[in-house]
This record gives sequence, structure tokens and C-alpha cells, in this order.
Amino acid sequence: MKYRSSTEGKEIVKKDYRKKIIFSPEDFDETGHLLQVVTIPPATRQRLHSHRVQTEVFYILEGEATITINDVDYLARPGDAFICTPGDVHNLWNKTKEDFRLVVFKINLPEEGEDSHWHE
Amino acid sequence: MKYRSSTEGKEIVKKDYRKKIIFSPEDFDETGHLLQVVTIPPATRQRLHSHRVQTEVFYILEGEATITINDVDYLARPGDAFICTPGDVHNLWNKTKEDFRLVVFKINLPEEGEDSHWHE
Repeated sequence: MKYRSSTEGKEIVKKDYRKKIIFSPEDFDETGHLLQVVTIPPATRQRLHSHRVQTEVFYILEGEATITINDVDYLARPGDAFICTPGDVHNLWNKTKEDFRLVVFKINLPEEGEDSHWHE
Repeated sequence: MKYRSSTEGKEIVKKDYRKKIIFSPEDFDETGHLLQVVTIPPATRQRLHSHRVQTEVFYILEGEATITINDVDYLARPGDAFICTPGDVHNLWNKTKEDFRLVVFKINLPEEGEDSHWHE
């Protein structure tokens, strides 16, 4: 059993998103999992990228953004969900004035090495 | 790649909770996963139970409830998260007048057979 209060942990600020890791791989008995909350700030577009090995499950918490997966655009709103399998080229583009937040659950996250491939 | 709009799917009403399955095991390339949103209605207590094989990851979306895991009570609020590993005896008790909602991600869900053990 593991418990994390929403008040624990610290946001990691990147150029085009922020993330807070809730459960790291070592919190799971099974290998390759991670749970994090990602925030895309207002008027922010992530670069298109894909993952070589990991699968990402997205569940939208708050706000509105365009998610592009393999050249198809989806308007992502709270309660919407997506699975990005390895090789799916995707990004998030928050065109609004409010934060866009989602919870990301990873499957098959490699223990070592860079798993992201940037397409731009 | 898979996409589910929040408007898709139907809630399954059980005696002490409601659930909407967002992604079923067959939506994943990997075995044993499932994503669902669970709602505990106001003034509702689930019976204590555990799972033999599956691990459950909870991320709280809305409301407030007491989650008991192995005889320890936690006040669960939006953004809090929990991992229940096999054998962890747990339940949710919504003592408020509002719905309590959480997203549940399952790991190692068996393909067949009942994986829940009821302790009361």
C-alpha cells in the first residue's frame, strides 16, 4: 500500500510543461509504471514526440487543449482519455488562457535510457 | 492509439458504487490493465474487500471520502493517490452529501475468475 497526499511532491518545470511525479517506478511491485500529473500552461505548445517503448495513458483533469496523435487532432476536455502506444507521434497544445491538466499513467517505462524521440 | 470521449460509455450501477469503464483490457496491447472512473454516492460505505492478484492505483478526482486500507484511515481528497497491492484490505466511505469520484487504473487484472474477496 502506498499513499501520496496532493500536498506532497514538487513540480518539475520544463520549457513547455510542468510535471509532478506521484508514484515512481520504485513505488510499484511491477516494473515499468509511473503516475504523474502534467500541466500545460496557457498558450503553450509541446513539440511533437513519440516514445520507443513506453505506453502512456492520459486522463484529462482540467482545462481544454488540442491533442494531436499521428496527425489527427482531438479536442481534449475533462474526462476524456487516450492511450498512446509506442511510435504514436503526439503533442499537446493549450491554446487557452487557463492551465490544462492531465494525469498520465505509464506502462513499460524503461529503467534506463531516453525513451522519447522528438520529431521537431 | 485509443481515444474515449467523456460522453461515451455507460455507468454501471452497483449497490454501493457506480463505475464507468473507460478502457477495457482489450484496449491495451499489454495484458491485465483497465481504466475506470468510480463514483461513491453520498452517505455510502463500500464493504471491506481485497484483491487476490490485481493492483489498483487510485487518483482522486472529486469530493471527499474516508479510505481505509489495512485498518488505517485516510481522508482522501482531489489529487491524493493510493496504490492497493494484492491482499490490502480496503474500502471507501463517502460520509458527505456530494459524490466522491476517483479514477482507477488496474495492473495484473486476471482475464478470468473473481479477483475480489469480501471481508464483511
